Amino acid sequence: MTYCVAICLQEGIVFLSDTRTNAGVDDIGLFRKMTIFQNKNNRLFSLLSSGNLAITQAVQEILHQGTLFEGMNLWTANSTYDAAVVVGHAIRKVKERYQQAFDEENIEFACNFLFGGQVLGERPRLFHIYSAGNFLESTQETCYLQIGEAKYGKPILDRVLNYQTPIDLATKCALISMDSTLKSNISVGLPLDLLVYEKDQFLLNKAVTIDEDNAYFKMIRNLWGQKLTEIVMSIQEPSWYLANNALSITASPSRLEPIPLVQEESLKKI
Amino acid sequence: MTYCVAICLQEGIVFLSDTRTNAGVDDIGLFRKMTIFQNKNNRLFSLLSSGNLAITQAVQEILHQGTLFEGMNLWTANSTYDAAVVVGHAIRKVKERYQQAFDEENIEFACNFLFGGQVLGERPRLFHIYSAGNFLESTQETCYLQIGEAKYGKPILDRVLNYQTPIDLATKCALISMDSTLKSNISVGLPLDLLVYEKDQFLLNKAVTIDEDNAYFKMIRNLWGQKLTEIVMSIQEPSWYLANNALSITASPSRLEPIPLVQEESLKKI
Repeated sequence: MTYCVAICLQEGIVFLSDTRTNAGVDDIGLFRKMTIFQNKNNRLFSLLSSGNLAITQAVQEILHQGTLFEGMNLWTANSTYDAAVVVGHAIRKVKERYQQAFDEENIEFACNFLFGGQVLGERPRLFHIYSAGNFLESTQETCYLQIGEAKYGKPILDRVLNYQTPIDLATKCALISMDSTLKSNISVGLPLDLLVYEKDQFLLNKAVTIDEDNAYFKMIRNLWGQKLTEIVMSIQEPSWYLANNALSITASPSRLEPIPLVQEESLKKI
Repeated sequence: MTYCVAICLQEGIVFLSDTRTNAGVDDIGLFRKMTIFQNKNNRLFSLLSSGNLAITQAVQEILHQGTLFEGMNLWTANSTYDAAVVVGHAIRKVKERYQQAFDEENIEFACNFLFGGQVLGERPRLFHIYSAGNFLESTQETCYLQIGEAKYGKPILDRVLNYQTPIDLATKCALISMDSTLKSNISVGLPLDLLVYEKDQFLLNKAVTIDEDNAYFKMIRNLWGQKLTEIVMSIQEPSWYLANNALSITASPSRLEPIPLVQEESLKKI
């Protein structure tokens, strides 16, 4: 399994991915799911992948080779949008190569990508690219995208993030979101690859691979669990018997029917 | 969609369910997913259901009717385990009735149940019953079970619960878990049905239907979101440049390869 999240903000883009792959529980591997494409003068892209590893590696290789689609590759595309079109074409090229064999073996052509970055002259942009090669873009209203095992880590993102969130805060949120996922799904695993891309920099000065010894992530893992438990403890517990207490759990519902109840006594009367 | 959770503790069992059903986004309905079976002298069971509503209602009806399976029904079963066997048989009876028609229409026989409670003379027990009628039981190590849209609400349960957790604290946790699910999936909806069953009572004195006006749940919804944001804010943000600071995010990884990087310059050299 995989968990990747990317957050596109006014200040730049945060990319975070785990590195665990599994083909059954008896075949666990460590593969990097993030690849960075950089020309220090005019562009930086990051590609995060989930799904069938043979497919996603093939797509990456085609992009590495600089194959031209519609006359462009990642180095010559005029915009991040056009670069996403190139990634889409690379996916379709892999699909053409293997589709018949996959059909014969009844294998699903499963892959998803997060692709984002910046080309000189435009703002940072972020896309979710599907196995058909088409894609959607994050917006100011929905500033983060996820692939893989997304649900465990979604609630915290929904609570905290918006397009104006400072990039360091968003980085912290992404790591907390990953920590929740690691805790609830053992098929997502360390180390993590983190890239914090600051707008207009085209630099890799905030890229790090985080393992179990990383002091910052260790601090988050310990503190988050502890503080979460503290809030649960700090919230008042339900009061059942004080119907006039504003916080009584039994205070309100007169217009609702009670929970359906079958009693043996009443049954016998039928 | 549905979210139901039940927690089996030393002190008793907490049952919580939402009430939203949907057959497509243009067909949203409110149906109760919890049914309680009670004989004040010797037994109390609660049944929570998810899946195809026509199936789950048919199963409930068969249980209401007191149909005998292996010579027993919910009123005569000697244990909660035997009562779960009865529920399993009721599921299989519905399956027999409709399986051919379902196959013709290519409809999946989809249903899941949480079933738990207590029969006089034994401890409270909790089961997850599958569409095949078989089931697993919660244990001291894994004291909660979920059906439906389970992932959003799982992290908080994993952090806080164990078999010795006091029942009021577990109730609060279940409501927080539901709140996270409501926030991230609009197809799970209010009102909620909550039953807190205290061991050896066979009573319904802590059963409530919670709507948007319930003071206690409103307090949880407001406080939880607010306090969660407060913890995120209170945790130190990543420090990138102080490599000697124990909390620097860049401190550790010397034994790891850097994130895969493709640079246009290096590509041209090939």
